[in-house]
Amino acid sequence: MEVPPPLVLKRPLYVPSKTLMGPGPSNCSHRVLEAMSNPVLGHMHPECLQIMDEVKEGIKYIFQTLNDATMCISGAGHSGMEAALCNLIEDGDVVLMGITGVWGHRAGDMARRYGAVVHYVEASFGRALSHEEITFAFEAHRPKVFFIAQGDSSTGIIQQNIRELGELCRKYDCFLIVDTVASLGGTEFLMDEWKVDVAYTGSQKSLGGPAGLTPISFSKRALTRIRKRKSKPKVYYFDILLIGQYWGCYGTPRIYHHTISSTLLYGLREALAHFCAVGLKAVVRRHQECSKRLQLGIEELGLEMFVSREDERLPTVNTIKVPFGVDWKKVAEYAMRKYSVEISGGLGPTVEHVFRIGLMGENATVERVDMVLSILNEAIQSSKLGIKTDLSKI
Amino acid sequence: MEVPPPLVLKRPLYVPSKTLMGPGPSNCSHRVLEAMSNPVLGHMHPECLQIMDEVKEGIKYIFQTLNDATMCISGAGHSGMEAALCNLIEDGDVVLMGITGVWGHRAGDMARRYGAVVHYVEASFGRALSHEEITFAFEAHRPKVFFIAQGDSSTGIIQQNIRELGELCRKYDCFLIVDTVASLGGTEFLMDEWKVDVAYTGSQKSLGGPAGLTPISFSKRALTRIRKRKSKPKVYYFDILLIGQYWGCYGTPRIYHHTISSTLLYGLREALAHFCAVGLKAVVRRHQECSKRLQLGIEELGLEMFVSREDERLPTVNTIKVPFGVDWKKVAEYAMRKYSVEISGGLGPTVEHVFRIGLMGENATVERVDMVLSILNEAIQSSKLGIKTDLSKI
Repeated sequence: MEVPPPLVLKRPLYVPSKTLMGPGPSNCSHRVLEAMSNPVLGHMHPECLQIMDEVKEGIKYIFQTLNDATMCISGAGHSGMEAALCNLIEDGDVVLMGITGVWGHRAGDMARRYGAVVHYVEASFGRALSHEEITFAFEAHRPKVFFIAQGDSSTGIIQQNIRELGELCRKYDCFLIVDTVASLGGTEFLMDEWKVDVAYTGSQKSLGGPAGLTPISFSKRALTRIRKRKSKPKVYYFDILLIGQYWGCYGTPRIYHHTISSTLLYGLREALAHFCAVGLKAVVRRHQECSKRLQLGIEELGLEMFVSREDERLPTVNTIKVPFGVDWKKVAEYAMRKYSVEISGGLGPTVEHVFRIGLMGENATVERVDMVLSILNEAIQSSKLGIKTDLSKI
Repeated sequence: MEVPPPLVLKRPLYVPSKTLMGPGPSNCSHRVLEAMSNPVLGHMHPECLQIMDEVKEGIKYIFQTLNDATMCISGAGHSGMEAALCNLIEDGDVVLMGITGVWGHRAGDMARRYGAVVHYVEASFGRALSHEEITFAFEAHRPKVFFIAQGDSSTGIIQQNIRELGELCRKYDCFLIVDTVASLGGTEFLMDEWKVDVAYTGSQKSLGGPAGLTPISFSKRALTRIRKRKSKPKVYYFDILLIGQYWGCYGTPRIYHHTISSTLLYGLREALAHFCAVGLKAVVRRHQECSKRLQLGIEELGLEMFVSREDERLPTVNTIKVPFGVDWKKVAEYAMRKYSVEISGGLGPTVEHVFRIGLMGENATVERVDMVLSILNEAIQSSKLGIKTDLSKI
């Protein structure tokens, strides 16, 4: 029996333009999009390796690190989480996951598959973890690896005390993995100064690059441990010693590890170039100012932020309580249908409880903040009217 | 200490245009490149899911399969190899790797990391594996999983007897993984009819799509085994039950698994659309005719193909013996410097022994064949002259 060519592929490609103000991806700039229509390059061509070198320098800057083992994983943000865990964990290692939303649970799922003994330390609902809570869990479990998301995009919570956690991990001879997928660019992050052992971030959030390449960096201390492993990391594709060799991190000849997407490299390179030109501090300031403006606007609309403490609010992904009697889905659909603007619902523990509004990269501007506030208000009012109409029919 | 923004990112992005006639990636068409500058979409937006559905139908067509579990892994071709092995292997499973070049060894490295007991059956140098050799190894090792590359891009060898291997695997209650990264589009491949359990291919070879998304398909039989695993697959990122849920393969609601690159989806969609419009048989015919023409030309130039038996030559990646006294590197450099055309050297067992000329996708045309033959000849002559000149200096 022959499988015929599908009719759907006879139709032209359809890609609508939207304003992506959910938890990510955010919109890419014209510069980034245009770069990605450049001709492809071979993965070992000198011009491709040159772009990789430039990307590497950009990543060092955004993480504020001098780590040699700075590179990208060829995969979504989740592949950064995998690579961090895969390289540090050996069978039976005790791993502690900090939980302020969903990502610590996701990391726990991954780590267990790698053979780790996984424990969790969970923050109160809508709160960041305190130093005391974490220290208590360290005392109880004596972890070899500690994972925390600096920003949890499901709850909109920021974990401010990474610097202290770096100290704590050194004290307990533990390795610190920080997920900065949603937070980087929206808040300070100083990898070296804070003694972070592994950090990775999303390309498609505040950076404004395309999804599919995940910047990651390993400290010298982490690298030493990885070099001393008793067994190879369980996944060839995530083996940081091999990937780093391809990325020219260790001063050894570059050896083919996989075929990197030159297209995504172009996009990420241009996103990083823009980010670096504006400057880290200015980028962070802009994201914070936009979030402050949004929070004020939310208050003026009579709405309430999900995270009660102001200093625990992630500026990049803002969570707003869904008012009583309002169907979040109708609100999101209204915004998308009428304005092609993405306002997102919750995820995991916040499903049906919150709206998530992303202010990242191209969308972290005063104009976008004012626009999204106005649309959110209109959509909520309209959804209330909708309910009234329905009631009147009874 | 502050890490300053890198100066290299102040320079504009530089991407030269090249004719990529190595073992891949091949050139993308204008249609594919242009598609990738479309605005990004969210990974759960209906328009994105629609494109995923279209890509899925295209993949079913190119593999000639009706498998529900047909999707992409968000990663390079190697991530397809990982996903195939990761989902089928449990600790202690015996896995047999067919070796006609480097890829069976690579698969062996991956499988061992997943806890498999790995055996190899290796073909004679420059030859495909015979049915007898494989049957003998099956008798000796009784594997649970058998891996073979239909085309090995390091040697340019094609394994013609996949249909028989499908039968053999059923007889031994074994699962058949076929790597079609380099072969698909250049030769017949009938996944369902040949009883292949897992197949994956490269997007950036004959398909002419971008690197970074890897089409893969699992048979119903493979899926049943995976559903009955005693342990979860060792890698969350490669867990085909979860990825397939996101791709809408199982008739269940689509659940977020990772952030897919919409950019790469656009490119792959357009590559598949073109491939489907031309038709599988016509694509294969063109690749084969181009390879035949190249082989004739090679003979006329007084050169010799590396694979002695004509029926064991892969049409997509053609391996040509480096003539005595010629430095392959100088030849490749000459072609690149003067014509921006990539002619590649060997890999693994063929390093320094062969040139590899890729005739794939956009580059599988009569004009390109004639061009690359003329350039190869000129480059070889020039490199010989180079040697003479050097000698005359003594």
